[in-house]
Amino acid sequence: MERGFNIIRTARAIVRVTDLEASRDFYVHALGFIETEADDNHIYLRGLEDQGHHCYVLKKADKPGVEVISYKVSCEEDLDKLETFFAGKGLPTKWVEAGSQRAIGRALRVKDISGIPVEFFCKMDRVERLLQRFDLYKGARMQRIDHFNCMVPDVQKAYDFYIDKLGFRCSEYTTTAKMDERIWAAWLHRKPAVHDVAYMNGKGPRLHHTGFWLSDPMSVIDTCDVLASMGYAKNIERGPGRHGLSNAFFLYLRDPDGHRVELYTGDYFTGDPDFEPVRWDLDDPQRATFWGHEAPDSWFEEAMEFLDVTSGEKVTTEEAKLEKRKPDFVM
Amino acid sequence: MERGFNIIRTARAIVRVTDLEASRDFYVHALGFIETEADDNHIYLRGLEDQGHHCYVLKKADKPGVEVISYKVSCEEDLDKLETFFAGKGLPTKWVEAGSQRAIGRALRVKDISGIPVEFFCKMDRVERLLQRFDLYKGARMQRIDHFNCMVPDVQKAYDFYIDKLGFRCSEYTTTAKMDERIWAAWLHRKPAVHDVAYMNGKGPRLHHTGFWLSDPMSVIDTCDVLASMGYAKNIERGPGRHGLSNAFFLYLRDPDGHRVELYTGDYFTGDPDFEPVRWDLDDPQRATFWGHEAPDSWFEEAMEFLDVTSGEKVTTEEAKLEKRKPDFVM
Amino acid sequence: MERGFNIIRTARAIVRVTDLEASRDFYVHALGFIETEADDNHIYLRGLEDQGHHCYVLKKADKPGVEVISYKVSCEEDLDKLETFFAGKGLPTKWVEAGSQRAIGRALRVKDISGIPVEFFCKMDRVERLLQRFDLYKGARMQRIDHFNCMVPDVQKAYDFYIDKLGFRCSEYTTTAKMDERIWAAWLHRKPAVHDVAYMNGKGPRLHHTGFWLSDPMSVIDTCDVLASMGYAKNIERGPGRHGLSNAFFLYLRDPDGHRVELYTGDYFTGDPDFEPVRWDLDDPQRATFWGHEAPDSWFEEAMEFLDVTSGEKVTTEEAKLEKRKPDFVM
Amino acid sequence: MERGFNIIRTARAIVRVTDLEASRDFYVHALGFIETEADDNHIYLRGLEDQGHHCYVLKKADKPGVEVISYKVSCEEDLDKLETFFAGKGLPTKWVEAGSQRAIGRALRVKDISGIPVEFFCKMDRVERLLQRFDLYKGARMQRIDHFNCMVPDVQKAYDFYIDKLGFRCSEYTTTAKMDERIWAAWLHRKPAVHDVAYMNGKGPRLHHTGFWLSDPMSVIDTCDVLASMGYAKNIERGPGRHGLSNAFFLYLRDPDGHRVELYTGDYFTGDPDFEPVRWDLDDPQRATFWGHEAPDSWFEEAMEFLDVTSGEKVTTEEAKLEKRKPDFVM
Repeated sequence: MERGFNIIRTARAIVRVTDLEASRDFYVHALGFIETEADDNHIYLRGLEDQGHHCYVLKKADKPGVEVISYKVSCEEDLDKLETFFAGKGLPTKWVEAGSQRAIGRALRVKDISGIPVEFFCKMDRVERLLQRFDLYKGARMQRIDHFNCMVPDVQKAYDFYIDKLGFRCSEYTTTAKMDERIWAAWLHRKPAVHDVAYMNGKGPRLHHTGFWLSDPMSVIDTCDVLASMGYAKNIERGPGRHGLSNAFFLYLRDPDGHRVELYTGDYFTGDPDFEPVRWDLDDPQRATFWGHEAPDSWFEEAMEFLDVTSGEKVTTEEAKLEKRKPDFVM
Repeated sequence: MERGFNIIRTARAIVRVTDLEASRDFYVHALGFIETEADDNHIYLRGLEDQGHHCYVLKKADKPGVEVISYKVSCEEDLDKLETFFAGKGLPTKWVEAGSQRAIGRALRVKDISGIPVEFFCKMDRVERLLQRFDLYKGARMQRIDHFNCMVPDVQKAYDFYIDKLGFRCSEYTTTAKMDERIWAAWLHRKPAVHDVAYMNGKGPRLHHTGFWLSDPMSVIDTCDVLASMGYAKNIERGPGRHGLSNAFFLYLRDPDGHRVELYTGDYFTGDPDFEPVRWDLDDPQRATFWGHEAPDSWFEEAMEFLDVTSGEKVTTEEAKLEKRKPDFVM
Repeated sequence: MERGFNIIRTARAIVRVTDLEASRDFYVHALGFIETEADDNHIYLRGLEDQGHHCYVLKKADKPGVEVISYKVSCEEDLDKLETFFAGKGLPTKWVEAGSQRAIGRALRVKDISGIPVEFFCKMDRVERLLQRFDLYKGARMQRIDHFNCMVPDVQKAYDFYIDKLGFRCSEYTTTAKMDERIWAAWLHRKPAVHDVAYMNGKGPRLHHTGFWLSDPMSVIDTCDVLASMGYAKNIERGPGRHGLSNAFFLYLRDPDGHRVELYTGDYFTGDPDFEPVRWDLDDPQRATFWGHEAPDSWFEEAMEFLDVTSGEKVTTEEAKLEKRKPDFVM
Repeated sequence: MERGFNIIRTARAIVRVTDLEASRDFYVHALGFIETEADDNHIYLRGLEDQGHHCYVLKKADKPGVEVISYKVSCEEDLDKLETFFAGKGLPTKWVEAGSQRAIGRALRVKDISGIPVEFFCKMDRVERLLQRFDLYKGARMQRIDHFNCMVPDVQKAYDFYIDKLGFRCSEYTTTAKMDERIWAAWLHRKPAVHDVAYMNGKGPRLHHTGFWLSDPMSVIDTCDVLASMGYAKNIERGPGRHGLSNAFFLYLRDPDGHRVELYTGDYFTGDPDFEPVRWDLDDPQRATFWGHEAPDSWFEEAMEFLDVTSGEKVTTEEAKLEKRKPDFVM
């Protein structure tokens, strides 16, 4: 790595929820996450293929919000280099020492270029992988965390920062000649899949959704049936459907606090150095959601606020710099 | 049969289309119907499991419309008994002699109690069954015809006629105490599945859709992908989704002339004499489309007009007798 | 019905098992049958779509065996007519009065032409249908009972009796010119599917398997995974695969006592009076199991003995009249 | 990379076939590979997600054999470094200049530590990606190449070379205390999936199979049906089934010349630096093929010979160093 640090992949999110029991019903009993452990204020969830302790943390709080989104890095040294890099850019950084967070080692928290609280760590406790305990599979049969999708007012700025400074690569993006080809939305990755993080033009910074990987389309269909029979039909916001962008088969859900979760299966390999990003024109009617279904307004307008990495207060949001649109093909 | 005649099942529909080639593209190339044969004015389509010559006839005409919906009966004698029965009720009947329609024997056409042109026949030419020619499967992998769904202004009248006089049985129905339990919609069958014909309260008589059976849910998903990649995304009107009523996994399509086709898989056995019909309350919010997705307005408002069995003119439609609604759970 | 009685469908089997708890683990926890109720000596199982109390009874006994296979008839009067018919043929009959069997009304038990203990009844207690309780689905997501498959030494005799006397119809059969077209195996139905009962040439009478209906192929695949993760890999005897005959997607399992269960999905409609049975030649190498996999010897040789309807002792078996074969395509 | 070169992934194989037309029928018409182009002596095949010109080359020859297996590297400089590395080990190397092979740039061919002809290149012509042309999907809906599996007489030697010298990582391996924990089989990767190459103890070096990625299990099932209906049932050698190792859902086929192809879907992410390889004991009966089906002898004994990178003659094979076994769980 010319940058001196090596970000591996999307690793976990810590989301604030107002009722742990209601969240457990949704994530564990309905969606089929594995509950690694819990205490009075947290539930630690993992997917069926995870060797790591968790990939999603539900943290009890008075109001919903997103505390941090985290990436796994290669080694301890990477954390120091990242601290140097962010501090050098004048961006706030904060160390969270090993032992102060359950199951992970030393972590670096920063405020990124868009104001998003981002965490980096390299060590997480290992637990039993349950990939072949099919008798425990239920609901969505959650395999692993896949990506974050963030709404930000200036996608181009986030894009430039993550591509040029952090070493992410772009798999697909949306733009238009009318906007001088400024990036309207972009899918960026470190692992060789479609994304670890996507940025969409919109009021932000806000977390639009966290995406989780499923092994096949029938798991998505079965999830709809299970959710509906448990009284969660209203939590199905969009889909199932096929994304034009990414080609993934998807379903969007809202948890009891409004956090959006995407079930996602079927993208492709992007690891070739000469992989050529796919361009989608914002104005091209052919680029609509692949099956032509319109997404609901809530999907375009609603997203979850972040908490400031230093103050813990809600991060101030700004309106989008580019024209706001409701293109059907954005995911 | 105490009635003296034995209706077996939904057998075929004859629909008028304005452009045979455009219809062929949709039904044969995209959906995967087998084209048994064609002439200048007709295309005869069958499903993969059909031993019979066809189950759907596309007939060239200036304007779209539905010429007739047909049921297969047990034997020739049934036709005579049905003629006697309908004539005795003062309902118009017409014989179509063997040889005058491609591949079927003598047929009786009648105007039923709702004004719908209905045909009965017992003989159809046999052709090669292609059920195990998986190399020919494409698109929706259409297996067989399943049912008709008709909008009529007086569902109770159609229900009474088909149940009491024609020997159909009811699998599921919609009503409400507010309407003195008058039937708002009903699913009626002769074969032991959910339906051969359904009636829904609405302006009519009109054919809402013809339903075709698929062998599994992935065939529905694959159909969406194939349609979208062939430029037919706009022809996907509703779904995929799960019906509360019938429990079937469904997709609604509109053909190039606006004829609605349902792809349908997964109902259940209804052949027990003591099978108890499932009642759905029109006002019960719990009875919504199983996954909670709202159907588009077009699905509730648009349907195809029938042609009069005697005159060949469009059958006059009337507004619905009961309150018109857009309940999500009707299918 | 010219015969005066109307057999509706395959309804239930009563199988003897040596360890109720071991059987519960297999059928309920692994395969996902619904346990309607149990007492010290019985477990009553039903499928997800059943309105009836049960379709499979596990009865505790010292040794495994099959007590009876049952068909549902249309009405009480049918039972009397069947009693008259069987008695008239000199075949043993026995009434089991209402109240003496859990959840069913008066039942007629007979020894059929092959020596098989067969039961007829028309009434069964109704229970809640769980078809849309997807949150309860697990394992194979058992939908309903589908058919019995019996090994008998003289298939032609069983065929003639069920076709000519009991009003069954044949969907598919195996024969060969070398055997003067005598029936080697036959699939017979009352409901309009491929079968309610099949007879195969072999040492018998013995119950080869009871078939249960699943809604889609992925339920078969998921069953294999669940069984394997619960330690039941050795109970998977054959499949998954595609039958040439019937076209069904199948899996054969052995329960802890050796009772064979088929998971079965995907056959076709056979209710047309002019449906033409499919003939398979025993010697035609093209007729092999559709994907060409050979079935294990155990599948051809092992089957479960019946208990005499009168004495309760094991029914004496005889060797097959026709040449024994191991054709791959028999199911 | 401390080694100074960066191998990206499994890229292509060149296999010799005796009848191009027979091969086209199998790979293109039955399995659904995309034929990018062909000349009198070659057919160039790619998967549905490929941006690259091909991932599998059929080359006409008198006798079947494997000319080379290829990996994509990051850049031109990597090729030079690899040449220096192999030459330094005394292993034969050969440059194939740009322009001399269809659609790829300069390539380095080497004889690896096991005697296998291996090729490295970084540039391949780009072509239209057909991932969303679902109307062109057929057969197995081949997505992309995934891995090679080679039989070698000394797995430990290959393992050490690829891990220590070429920077591969191990995801899963088989060993046993009885053999002093010497590696019996190993799955090695550069891309963060289960493997780019696997080595199994056996007579070799020979290519056991080339694995291709499918997007979901139903594509595997559908492939069996399509192959069988096209007369290729005999080409289905093993499966469908679930691997214990890798957890993938698989099917093994033999092409008209005996080349073995694996259809493969469903492995997991292995990109974490602290990912812990899964150890399987050769003697542990619990580690059998997940569903317990035994693989046929042909699968353990037959494999395809390589051609020497320098002479073009068949590479001499040796018997396996470790005990030969037929453990069910090897894949």
